Amino acid sequence: MTVSMTTNKKVNKIAVVQTGGCSAVINSTLAGIVENAKASGLTIYGLLNGFEGLLNNKIIDLSVLTKEQIDKLRNTPAMFLGSSRMFLTKEIFKAIPQKLNELGIDALIMIGGNGTMYAAKVIHQSAVEQNIDLVVVGSPKTVDNDMFGIEYSPGFGSAAKYIAQLVRDISVDLESMKTFEQVRIIEVMGRSVGWLAAASMLAKRSEKGAPHLIYLPEHDFNEVEFVEDVKKVYEENGFVVAVIGEGIHDSEGNPVGSNPFADVKQASKIYGGASTYLASLISEKLNLKARAQDLTMAQRCFGALRSDIDEQKAYKIGFVTIEALKDNHDNEMICLADNNEDYYTIALEDVGGKEKKVPDDFYDAKNKQMTKDFKEWIMPIIGNFDDKYLSLSDMK
Amino acid sequence: MTVSMTTNKKVNKIAVVQTGGCSAVINSTLAGIVENAKASGLTIYGLLNGFEGLLNNKIIDLSVLTKEQIDKLRNTPAMFLGSSRMFLTKEIFKAIPQKLNELGIDALIMIGGNGTMYAAKVIHQSAVEQNIDLVVVGSPKTVDNDMFGIEYSPGFGSAAKYIAQLVRDISVDLESMKTFEQVRIIEVMGRSVGWLAAASMLAKRSEKGAPHLIYLPEHDFNEVEFVEDVKKVYEENGFVVAVIGEGIHDSEGNPVGSNPFADVKQASKIYGGASTYLASLISEKLNLKARAQDLTMAQRCFGALRSDIDEQKAYKIGFVTIEALKDNHDNEMICLADNNEDYYTIALEDVGGKEKKVPDDFYDAKNKQMTKDFKEWIMPIIGNFDDKYLSLSDMK
Repeated sequence: MTVSMTTNKKVNKIAVVQTGGCSAVINSTLAGIVENAKASGLTIYGLLNGFEGLLNNKIIDLSVLTKEQIDKLRNTPAMFLGSSRMFLTKEIFKAIPQKLNELGIDALIMIGGNGTMYAAKVIHQSAVEQNIDLVVVGSPKTVDNDMFGIEYSPGFGSAAKYIAQLVRDISVDLESMKTFEQVRIIEVMGRSVGWLAAASMLAKRSEKGAPHLIYLPEHDFNEVEFVEDVKKVYEENGFVVAVIGEGIHDSEGNPVGSNPFADVKQASKIYGGASTYLASLISEKLNLKARAQDLTMAQRCFGALRSDIDEQKAYKIGFVTIEALKDNHDNEMICLADNNEDYYTIALEDVGGKEKKVPDDFYDAKNKQMTKDFKEWIMPIIGNFDDKYLSLSDMK
Repeated sequence: MTVSMTTNKKVNKIAVVQTGGCSAVINSTLAGIVENAKASGLTIYGLLNGFEGLLNNKIIDLSVLTKEQIDKLRNTPAMFLGSSRMFLTKEIFKAIPQKLNELGIDALIMIGGNGTMYAAKVIHQSAVEQNIDLVVVGSPKTVDNDMFGIEYSPGFGSAAKYIAQLVRDISVDLESMKTFEQVRIIEVMGRSVGWLAAASMLAKRSEKGAPHLIYLPEHDFNEVEFVEDVKKVYEENGFVVAVIGEGIHDSEGNPVGSNPFADVKQASKIYGGASTYLASLISEKLNLKARAQDLTMAQRCFGALRSDIDEQKAYKIGFVTIEALKDNHDNEMICLADNNEDYYTIALEDVGGKEKKVPDDFYDAKNKQMTKDFKEWIMPIIGNFDDKYLSLSDMK
């Protein structure tokens, strides 16, 4: 346990916010926080829609939640408190500690990703500059798995499992239908990192099985090579499943399928259209029937197929965050130790705004496949992912 | 049990085909067929990729499947035997009975939807005309639930459950993120019938909850009214989830979002884009952030979230189809009786090419909602669909 940053401020009243995008287990973290806060005799408030709620007095007392309600909260995907779209200006960064102070709140927990940890650091700094006693700690969360300093982020395991199952079943579907349609380009979340695209490799039912090709945003995308890759797999298999991270881009950094003449208002929509563009490209160049498929918004928040491991860790992270507050930690992100009981911490400034990419030894860039090392890394996070299906090759 | 159509032909060797689109339980029907055929001492062959396999000698002996393999087959979504894209010409309809006869096959089971039942009728007729002894029976299957003469089709329950869960979790996600994005238009399968769109109503967590608006292809779609509907719900709720059947069309029958100038090659792609078109329309007319979401190809074949009721019925339908063959039925579709043990039959000509639409008393066209009658109808098909989530309103 790192004890780099502690404080002597006594914590009684705590506020918690959820920021950024949804996950299937972010409410499990909230449940862990509420449960331990209550058990520790602390008062815990939730800010509705983040700092918008704080500044507009939309705050709820979470200490009133019953045990039954806390259990329900663990089962609820997405963000119970709601997220915020508010752009944090210099003025708002100044106002946040003031407002918390007015309300008698002495600690703030921010559940979120790298951007959230950066904001947490700035809020802490702002409190210091204003001589306001405010403890600020972060609690990690992101489906993208791009957080610095931790092995994997709560939310990632559930999203990864959902994606792997969908890619597997869509692949079995396409194989059945290959006389109709030969190529499917599946687009998954992860703007600048490919962890979720990589996770689709769990869908492989044999070494050469689908998904046949995986493209990560960490590597420059080459359209000519892509068409050749698809052609080769088609000639070998009769159908092709390719998975792309939504943020793939060419060697100059231009997103694949973007329209350079699009107006700014439309930019984000077009940015997300790589699979549609690539399906058209394949239809045109190889004369195969190709379909684009984005895996829906549910990939970040599908409650029905969560990873139990992910959910339990998310809950525990919430629980130990309160322990860390009781131990006087401040200005840090609170992480779960390997034994799943204790915690360790990382200074907010060592996390905020950074990004963890998929390392090179996890990816076979020539064959567009994840390596054995990646599989060994991901299996304990996902847990059981057995192949219970029957295919023609099993009849030999 | 209707016994309208029996034969004295003795059945020994049976061939089975799977046609049309995939489902999560079509292999359960195949498993039921294989298990009972084996138990009854009959030989059962599978035609790979339908009649393409028959004409190209791609046929496998399914009698060799072990009990363990049959159980695995029940757990495998999509089509184990593969579907076919072959257009059935007059010549092919003539060749099918001839080829089956050459192989000594005396009965054909076709698993599929209304179109399959029509083809089955024509094949039967062709055999009669050629004086070939061939028993032909159909086994119902379609996720769309548009089959005539049966209460619901195997495959529908699983697809409906998947859609309901996805719409629920996407709705919870959107509610969390409503300060970012306000409207989501979810497009689900069902070209000319709205059963799957209707099933999304199970996602409602309260009477006025999401999905707020459901549009069925059975009713003419009016864009002006749609914009007004969305505006009204937004003003009441702060976010809007609308579900559309992919085949919605205006009062002149033009599909919503289609481009009348598109070339024929592109037509099907454009036809499926109603949600994209409507999301743009809402952004433009109401200045809200709206996103289109199609629910992926997995909605017709997702193995991980099947309805147990659906799977068990699909298996039983396969099982009783063999009973019906042993009872000398011919030229009929074999259906499972309400007691889940016996069967009844419908003449192929009473099913083939017909279509069962969502009846008017299941839909409140004014408020774009399904009625209580529909809910009562669908609940026993889906089974348990409890609401285990916690929302802010539960804290009152």
